[in-house]
Amino acid sequence: MKSHKKVDLNSDVGESFGTYKLGLDEEVIPLISSANIACGFHAGDPSVMQRTMGLAKKHGVAPGAHPGFPDLLGFGRRDMDVSVQEIKDYVAYQVGALQAFAAMEGLTLQHVKPHGALYNMAVKNPAIWEGVAEVLARLDQRLILVVLAGANRDELQRIGSRHGIRIAFEFFGDRAYNPDGSLASRKEPGAVIHDAELAAGRILKLVKEGKVTAKDGTEIELAAETICVHGDNPTAVTLTRKIRETLSASGIEIAPLGTFM
Amino acid sequence: MKSHKKVDLNSDVGESFGTYKLGLDEEVIPLISSANIACGFHAGDPSVMQRTMGLAKKHGVAPGAHPGFPDLLGFGRRDMDVSVQEIKDYVAYQVGALQAFAAMEGLTLQHVKPHGALYNMAVKNPAIWEGVAEVLARLDQRLILVVLAGANRDELQRIGSRHGIRIAFEFFGDRAYNPDGSLASRKEPGAVIHDAELAAGRILKLVKEGKVTAKDGTEIELAAETICVHGDNPTAVTLTRKIRETLSASGIEIAPLGTFM
Amino acid sequence: MKSHKKVDLNSDVGESFGTYKLGLDEEVIPLISSANIACGFHAGDPSVMQRTMGLAKKHGVAPGAHPGFPDLLGFGRRDMDVSVQEIKDYVAYQVGALQAFAAMEGLTLQHVKPHGALYNMAVKNPAIWEGVAEVLARLDQRLILVVLAGANRDELQRIGSRHGIRIAFEFFGDRAYNPDGSLASRKEPGAVIHDAELAAGRILKLVKEGKVTAKDGTEIELAAETICVHGDNPTAVTLTRKIRETLSASGIEIAPLGTFM
Amino acid sequence: MKSHKKVDLNSDVGESFGTYKLGLDEEVIPLISSANIACGFHAGDPSVMQRTMGLAKKHGVAPGAHPGFPDLLGFGRRDMDVSVQEIKDYVAYQVGALQAFAAMEGLTLQHVKPHGALYNMAVKNPAIWEGVAEVLARLDQRLILVVLAGANRDELQRIGSRHGIRIAFEFFGDRAYNPDGSLASRKEPGAVIHDAELAAGRILKLVKEGKVTAKDGTEIELAAETICVHGDNPTAVTLTRKIRETLSASGIEIAPLGTFM
Repeated sequence: MKSHKKVDLNSDVGESFGTYKLGLDEEVIPLISSANIACGFHAGDPSVMQRTMGLAKKHGVAPGAHPGFPDLLGFGRRDMDVSVQEIKDYVAYQVGALQAFAAMEGLTLQHVKPHGALYNMAVKNPAIWEGVAEVLARLDQRLILVVLAGANRDELQRIGSRHGIRIAFEFFGDRAYNPDGSLASRKEPGAVIHDAELAAGRILKLVKEGKVTAKDGTEIELAAETICVHGDNPTAVTLTRKIRETLSASGIEIAPLGTFM
Repeated sequence: MKSHKKVDLNSDVGESFGTYKLGLDEEVIPLISSANIACGFHAGDPSVMQRTMGLAKKHGVAPGAHPGFPDLLGFGRRDMDVSVQEIKDYVAYQVGALQAFAAMEGLTLQHVKPHGALYNMAVKNPAIWEGVAEVLARLDQRLILVVLAGANRDELQRIGSRHGIRIAFEFFGDRAYNPDGSLASRKEPGAVIHDAELAAGRILKLVKEGKVTAKDGTEIELAAETICVHGDNPTAVTLTRKIRETLSASGIEIAPLGTFM
Repeated sequence: MKSHKKVDLNSDVGESFGTYKLGLDEEVIPLISSANIACGFHAGDPSVMQRTMGLAKKHGVAPGAHPGFPDLLGFGRRDMDVSVQEIKDYVAYQVGALQAFAAMEGLTLQHVKPHGALYNMAVKNPAIWEGVAEVLARLDQRLILVVLAGANRDELQRIGSRHGIRIAFEFFGDRAYNPDGSLASRKEPGAVIHDAELAAGRILKLVKEGKVTAKDGTEIELAAETICVHGDNPTAVTLTRKIRETLSASGIEIAPLGTFM
Repeated sequence: MKSHKKVDLNSDVGESFGTYKLGLDEEVIPLISSANIACGFHAGDPSVMQRTMGLAKKHGVAPGAHPGFPDLLGFGRRDMDVSVQEIKDYVAYQVGALQAFAAMEGLTLQHVKPHGALYNMAVKNPAIWEGVAEVLARLDQRLILVVLAGANRDELQRIGSRHGIRIAFEFFGDRAYNPDGSLASRKEPGAVIHDAELAAGRILKLVKEGKVTAKDGTEIELAAETICVHGDNPTAVTLTRKIRETLSASGIEIAPLGTFM
């Protein structure tokens, strides 16, 4: 008999800006357990953050910061040649700003997940994870750093240990994986999985067996505590709902990272 | 025999941005007791905030937030027709961002003083003070709100009481006052006092006697716990040094607001 | 027998920004004769401007600049206390930027219509119209300045004459008018007309008779060469299509301002 | 007997922003023949552009655009992973904006020199030069594109020929060169030459003999029509004055690119 399993569903939310609306936050927030809230650099603004924090509270979803590069025009998706010190300053600033909106609702932030190019650059350069971990430790030792699950799990765990913070590993159910456990490039055909059944099945397999089928068919071991899901369009929300149902039907509890790590 | 008097000296600092340098922070911070640190909207950026917080810590100066309008081009000095809710969101965001840099240095913020047009609009519209006070109370009840000393002291004190936060009143030694206790408009001749002796003398009189000579020669009562001084150019730093010496020579102790309010 | 009448239909387009989409430009541009293209301050960005200019060219719509305040967060809808000189600099900058995209398509700009708060502030302060007119005259004497039709037609015509540029007067078919020919405030009930038939009828009456029924029922004279229509949502596009059909069915030709002024 | 030689001196100006002052434009503009004016992305703002254009006109200096990345915080010095199409849009926008200020003074732009990271990325990737050249050709065939002088002169000339625009090659008198004609990295010791005599001598040699001594002592051939000089601090202005005097004393005429290319 299997032991009781838990997994976290996280999604990027609060990405509207001023008069510009982006994402179906009202629909996706009730479906997830952790919300990655944009902090005003690549997306989001103070009023959007305030409202999004309110939505997270209303639905009992754990709020986290989703800091990015100061590049609203590029939505934080363009690599920028910034130093680790600048990244640390940008992360501190954005996490602090979001902490204010959490505090005003009587909440504390659960986690921090870097956005877009900042996340991708960190995946290639662990010195960035190290810098971010140091900032979180100095801001609030309870903050969990969300990183990409892959082959370097031990190295990232050591970064967490050095700074006394928890590291959560993230899995993408809608992305193909290389045999070495890294994400297949979006430029490759088949890198993004659009079939809801298939994506939900991959997530279920990961949660239950700790395995994912790489694009060449090999089975690789991968451990992850949180699954990234999307809410930027109706199809994405439908997929997220499907994932939630599949997990629940298999007896897997969806819960915020902070409750089981 | 007079009792032992204390007063706070505050100055706007951390106003550089990227490659742009503004203000002689290294020189003025050692002379003051409270630092109003720009928070990235009208001036300042994450790296400047980080360095300025370090300077405040080094010199034992109490750090505070100096939030402004999102108008870097106008340095936050241009009135903007924003709602009180937007102001609350902007203040929460900026104070939170600066709290992060304080936390990383093991400090807490002492106070919040709105900047430029935001300050001036609040002086004309107490609903803005009310909104800011509400934000501070929800962020950290220890935060002191710095407002302009004037005839409406009781009204502003009541705002503080309603939200359970302390209100500090600020005096400008280098500005002429109207007989009703309001600041003379900068557009009037003589509105700004450039003579160091005269300015220092006015500050001394305010601290010792609680009085200021209005521009028409009448003596008016005015109570203030903090004096605004400047460090944006060498002349300003010289004046600040003169003020500091005059106060010390008269047995008045210069100390951060939070230590005596 | 009816005389041959012409009128221009203008709409604000090119208001997307980076990853943020706003407005149904692909649907509304084929329906109008003049496009007010956002220039990157309150909305729009260089890539959006380039694409929007291409759409205008494809559909034979006359391109014009829609300059606004440097307030992307507020979509240029918030009054800012800027000087007339600053406004002139902002308008020159934005019009110049859009002229580049027109030049690259072998086009020239037909007109300039200030956006949002800049437009509203100019309606209250003719010194702003005067400053904008001076800029247009120095940039390209062929540029037409689009202003709000109202009681001060002669005054605005004189501004145009002084600077040697044409002034086009604009009518809002979906807005209630005061008996003095000014727009009823959006804060009043009934200020915005949502009924497509009613709006189209008002426009037809204006074009054919030069009259509008004010909110108190009085008939006032109003002359306008261009009608503002909208494309920010499907209902608006439907209304714009209705207006176009009503005008065409009445033998009124829809043509760009520059072809008949 | 020597033939009559001409060379252009160019400098980056108009880099102030709002209340932030940068560079001694009033002092350096009278010393140069071509002004690279920042266009509001990495530095500069509409009012600064208007004033700088006025200074250029007053001193008979040929104005040019100095477009950069949309990164005011990093002063356009940070590589950004933008596409060539985005670069083309950014350049068109900025050049157009500056053309407006030139037109308002009755001037036309002489040249375009990309700034900072945009320039450096183009040096490494000729597809960027190609994209910029295409934009200039479509905006105004008279615009000269300023590029880094080096070993790939023929390749860059061919880009100019393909688009029908002139290419000007730029030399840095205060920078060490590698034996292959490329600039030595700023990270190497000795990469920047601080000695005024030495820098002036290197420029003189380049203009008279078409040669530069590389850092390993080898003499390499290098052809350049324009020399980059600086005005960001008093030492730089002194060096620029020294360069001007050295060139004049040697019978070399300092003249804008457009007058002799």
